Amino acid sequence: MDYVHPMFRSHPRHAYIRPGLVECVDACNDCAMVCLSCADACIAENKGDTLAACIRLNLDCAALCTATAQMLARAAGPDWIVLSAALRACEAACAACAAQCGQHAQHMEHCRICAAACHACEEACRLLLGSTAEAK
Amino acid sequence: MDYVHPMFRSHPRHAYIRPGLVECVDACNDCAMVCLSCADACIAENKGDTLAACIRLNLDCAALCTATAQMLARAAGPDWIVLSAALRACEAACAACAAQCGQHAQHMEHCRICAAACHACEEACRLLLGSTAEAK
Amino acid sequence: MDYVHPMFRSHPRHAYIRPGLVECVDACNDCAMVCLSCADACIAENKGDTLAACIRLNLDCAALCTATAQMLARAAGPDWIVLSAALRACEAACAACAAQCGQHAQHMEHCRICAAACHACEEACRLLLGSTAEAK
Amino acid sequence: MDYVHPMFRSHPRHAYIRPGLVECVDACNDCAMVCLSCADACIAENKGDTLAACIRLNLDCAALCTATAQMLARAAGPDWIVLSAALRACEAACAACAAQCGQHAQHMEHCRICAAACHACEEACRLLLGSTAEAK
Repeated sequence: MDYVHPMFRSHPRHAYIRPGLVECVDACNDCAMVCLSCADACIAENKGDTLAACIRLNLDCAALCTATAQMLARAAGPDWIVLSAALRACEAACAACAAQCGQHAQHMEHCRICAAACHACEEACRLLLGSTAEAK
Repeated sequence: MDYVHPMFRSHPRHAYIRPGLVECVDACNDCAMVCLSCADACIAENKGDTLAACIRLNLDCAALCTATAQMLARAAGPDWIVLSAALRACEAACAACAAQCGQHAQHMEHCRICAAACHACEEACRLLLGSTAEAK
Repeated sequence: MDYVHPMFRSHPRHAYIRPGLVECVDACNDCAMVCLSCADACIAENKGDTLAACIRLNLDCAALCTATAQMLARAAGPDWIVLSAALRACEAACAACAAQCGQHAQHMEHCRICAAACHACEEACRLLLGSTAEAK
Repeated sequence: MDYVHPMFRSHPRHAYIRPGLVECVDACNDCAMVCLSCADACIAENKGDTLAACIRLNLDCAALCTATAQMLARAAGPDWIVLSAALRACEAACAACAAQCGQHAQHMEHCRICAAACHACEEACRLLLGSTAEAK
């Protein structure tokens, strides 16, 4: 069952919620979980230094996706300058993590899936940044 | 598109992943977002002290759901004693938040949805705790 | 007793740790706690809508300070583009929260302290961004 | 400069703040940072599977310490049942992480410091749980 979408619609100020915002919340949460799981899988691969940069970017990307999702959940009256800066940081982390995991995508299915989730979140952040820019 | 479930299946140690674990990840993430949104909606209701306890429990529940989901994403080789303690804390927070939001469910749709999401997460934690107990 | 500073010095790649990094970790952690406490105090003030924007910015600032501190703790081999974007987002949140809390500083001691902690963290982020720019 | 302690004293309901609470906030925040840094250092050691359990426990302990510190910052009107469950989970994570890092303490300074920070946080949680039990 889905609770997040009905919750956003029931918000007393839901008229202020931008197009693409709920999709960005979903993408950030999915990406955070996938990145944490990919870091754990990379550790289990036992390939030493080869995956060290990947593990660090996974954890950084998860931290920024989590913070961004938390801010997006306070959708009623956001400070758009602060939120835009968070979305740009999240977009940068997703792009870097997608590029890093993409290098291992052919050999490790978890890195392939993680790169896809990062690309999707990067795109969701970019779309929301676009609609935010128009709105100001 | 769903990335979390394929990611868990692609984990090199996915055979260790317990029944109910992926469902609990989903329930924790949904509950965290719904609780943060309910806190924001409660603030926007502008009802002062009436909702103060609700806002605090919403934020506490979100913090524990987020931490629990992060731990569950490292599914390959968890420390079951630590994970069980986290699941019990998460279950307690969900139960308390569901009871608190339930008191306002008739008057505020966001509290009704939040109580439902908390109940679902409480149940998902309890089921996973049961399968964990059997597994030890 | 302080564990964070000796820990950073004991890191196998501590030579890579930039000037200002450990100070920024401390400032981010302090600011996150102070912002969460200020949000809680604002709720306890029971002044309704007057403090709604303050509570939201407090929570947003705490989320970004927490994520930034987590990233800074992985100091051995950071992706400077991603880290710089996070530092800029944290700096923006601290500036906005300091301005908002500053409006209430004369009447509420917790908002005065929170504005000071936000200013200190904003400055620590700016200093680290400067040393990062030189290093690239 | 310290902002956290004056902030707690300025809280409109500071009379409700238990002995040991502010110390526990400090211990949780220190432990979270030290654990994240130890995980990063363990990855940089490039010792493969030997440190995999240590890295996972470090990350789990950091997640629970962070959530517990966030809850403790809302000190004015906590739900003691929920807070106690969080403190017990944090205590369990610190004990497990201290034991794991303790095994590597002779060979790696970062694991020695991490074990000490975990022990200190475990003790701070236990003391606060004791004062909480009396208070109910």
